[in-house]
Amino acid sequence: MQHVISVIVEDKPGVLARVSSMFARRDFNIHSLAVGPTEDAGRSRMTVVVDGIDTEQIIKQLYKLVHTIKVSEYAPGSAIEREVMLVRVNADAPRRAEILEAASAFGSTPVDVGASTITFEVTGEPGKLADFLELMKTYGIVNLVKSGRIAMGKDQKSAARKQKNGQGG
Amino acid sequence: MQHVISVIVEDKPGVLARVSSMFARRDFNIHSLAVGPTEDAGRSRMTVVVDGIDTEQIIKQLYKLVHTIKVSEYAPGSAIEREVMLVRVNADAPRRAEILEAASAFGSTPVDVGASTITFEVTGEPGKLADFLELMKTYGIVNLVKSGRIAMGKDQKSAARKQKNGQGG
Repeated sequence: MQHVISVIVEDKPGVLARVSSMFARRDFNIHSLAVGPTEDAGRSRMTVVVDGIDTEQIIKQLYKLVHTIKVSEYAPGSAIEREVMLVRVNADAPRRAEILEAASAFGSTPVDVGASTITFEVTGEPGKLADFLELMKTYGIVNLVKSGRIAMGKDQKSAARKQKNGQGG
Repeated sequence: MQHVISVIVEDKPGVLARVSSMFARRDFNIHSLAVGPTEDAGRSRMTVVVDGIDTEQIIKQLYKLVHTIKVSEYAPGSAIEREVMLVRVNADAPRRAEILEAASAFGSTPVDVGASTITFEVTGEPGKLADFLELMKTYGIVNLVKSGRIAMGKDQKSAARKQKNGQGG
């Protein structure tokens, strides 16, 4: 099972090294990681996706690190999750129309067209990206770059509160 | 000046810690980082954006790390660059239509609507995301999660080659 953990840290050199070393020391395998700015200057947010582990322990350890401001784990279904990827696919002339049509069913448009390849940008929930990749495998994937997953808790007022103390990310 | 460096590594625990420690030891500040799978199982790609530094030195150091397979730096304009973000904006009823219209000019649709907020998903080049945030600041940004930047070299055949030995990412 995958867990999505969001860590808000002070934006200082070395913070990422400390966080990732903590994961490594405890043999937690990071599935994906996205690090970027937040709405507050001077703070960064790391969204970490890790495989089946004792997340309570991880959260405790994260809070022990200097520069950690807040740690949240998103329960399945409680967050909006997004990824973006660039996928370059083999696309010789005879198959080009077919590939473009398949991609457009995913709302994806080409961002680069070469003599024998097409490159698509796809954004969405992780499941959508996985489905797109599965489809494109039949044509041959030449190159794939995928962002880490980002997640944001749903607006508390937009959904029934399940926990009284539940906090949006 | 920002540099975009792509590092392909073996997908083993501890690799991220080693890479980020190297950056920290040398006092290189990481602006954004995205880590995800590649087209080859067992390999991950890290896309690192760093501020004005001696990248030649960095690339040399990255190659010294065990598990590093390939390092590329993208010259400005040579790569397709994308980011995705989720932005929650203050949106009381009277301003709602105005905000939705502004967002749709960026091709962005709401992904979550609360009593007094709207959450947008925006994908694009870094400049587009910056413009969107600038616009939304006037309404008040409540929450922001941004992926690290991902980058892929343009298909060699889709553009005039500037370097004979230039390689796509």
